[in-house]
Amino acid sequence: MPGSRVVLDIRVYLEDTDAQGVVYHASYLRFMERARSEWLRSCGLDHESLRDDYGSQVVLSAIEARFRSAALLDDALCVSADVVETRGARMVFAQEVRRGDRFGALVCEARAEVACVGADDRRPKRLPSKLVGGPKR
Amino acid sequence: MPGSRVVLDIRVYLEDTDAQGVVYHASYLRFMERARSEWLRSCGLDHESLRDDYGSQVVLSAIEARFRSAALLDDALCVSADVVETRGARMVFAQEVRRGDRFGALVCEARAEVACVGADDRRPKRLPSKLVGGPKR
Amino acid sequence: MPGSRVVLDIRVYLEDTDAQGVVYHASYLRFMERARSEWLRSCGLDHESLRDDYGSQVVLSAIEARFRSAALLDDALCVSADVVETRGARMVFAQEVRRGDRFGALVCEARAEVACVGADDRRPKRLPSKLVGGPKR
Amino acid sequence: MPGSRVVLDIRVYLEDTDAQGVVYHASYLRFMERARSEWLRSCGLDHESLRDDYGSQVVLSAIEARFRSAALLDDALCVSADVVETRGARMVFAQEVRRGDRFGALVCEARAEVACVGADDRRPKRLPSKLVGGPKR
Repeated sequence: MPGSRVVLDIRVYLEDTDAQGVVYHASYLRFMERARSEWLRSCGLDHESLRDDYGSQVVLSAIEARFRSAALLDDALCVSADVVETRGARMVFAQEVRRGDRFGALVCEARAEVACVGADDRRPKRLPSKLVGGPKR
Repeated sequence: MPGSRVVLDIRVYLEDTDAQGVVYHASYLRFMERARSEWLRSCGLDHESLRDDYGSQVVLSAIEARFRSAALLDDALCVSADVVETRGARMVFAQEVRRGDRFGALVCEARAEVACVGADDRRPKRLPSKLVGGPKR
Repeated sequence: MPGSRVVLDIRVYLEDTDAQGVVYHASYLRFMERARSEWLRSCGLDHESLRDDYGSQVVLSAIEARFRSAALLDDALCVSADVVETRGARMVFAQEVRRGDRFGALVCEARAEVACVGADDRRPKRLPSKLVGGPKR
Repeated sequence: MPGSRVVLDIRVYLEDTDAQGVVYHASYLRFMERARSEWLRSCGLDHESLRDDYGSQVVLSAIEARFRSAALLDDALCVSADVVETRGARMVFAQEVRRGDRFGALVCEARAEVACVGADDRRPKRLPSKLVGGPKR
């Protein structure tokens, strides 16, 4: 799907690291969620408007992640979110974390499956049409 | 106020540490909040019942913390919460994090001021009477 | 591999939740890491002894997780770690997060691939024999 | 001390919030640490160079924070770090978190006391001269 990529620059702070001297693995999931939230914003929505205007939430239903190399404290990272599939209540993102910029060394790559659910009943719900077309240009 | 102390054993995991090789400072605030939640539970309440039965939330309104020594990955810690003052919508806890048990070396000590607010309007609200008497014996 | 299962009880605190009113997805990865650390401890090792006595670290190299239902603030959870494969520098854990106890409703299930690496060079390194046999009885 | 203020824009993501529907209190400490790290960077240093070139670390030794109003998911915040005192191994920062920009509504204000310690022995150590003069212009 063309026109659906978002890239976010992220600085590694102490909070993201652990006593092994590198970025704690679950921090990459936080970084990837930030990129998906920015993707949402690039479509003209955020979590609040999704809830208030559509009665919906987007939630992570599954993730497959591979950690290729370790990022370090003070590193500048680049996190991407590409929509590779959209159908009904479900979207799939291909995501990467790279060192420096989008051509930098691969730190982590993932396939994140996101579901749209009702904010009240948490049952599957069709994605707002704004999200199906991808980011606004 | 007698009968108002709760002590919680906490293990330090990778998630709690940072690249300086010690426990990340904000982790101690998470640990101390866990102890205050256990104090709540010891009074026969939790966050859910506070909201559902009283329409209330307890929120941290101020904290003064001093970090005395560093805790390390794999350490066993002991976190305490003592109510030292209760009035109207406001409680004050004296809290300590110690290494090993409650007689262990002092890692962190704090004074945490907690406010009871309406779950909807977030305005100050009288504390439920269950909380004023302290933990059930 | 018989004798290789560890189960850990975990309470959900405010720090683990998010504004969607449920446990934040990356918190489950933190919970599953705690269970793997307890598995390590059940084998007579921890992160510190692994580094000091073996010059080694265990790091997550890949994870596949599926989020089945949402856990809530104040929930009691049960997190398991089962070693399903061990070879050379690599172990695979099957992990589950369930509500209540090990027979409770499934919240999250995962396959976590862990690598043993040199603490200094972060290159693959044979697992200590203590870890190959599973937990001590 | 003139010329020593750093301001950092921060977006509130799901990871920063809790089930009370607002930013989790310890997240503000993470935000304020990010601003102090950016202050360090504005002086031409970061945690890595501090360790490698000076054998030093900066650690939080005490904090007093007051939470004035609640920030929400998707909010844009502005976090400041002002050096108000420097002496020997010790610096004091006045910090604020505001909604929107530096003139926005006050969310949190704090006084953070930071110590410079040896990276190996964690004993007090004179601050590098680069840090005493404040940010480079």
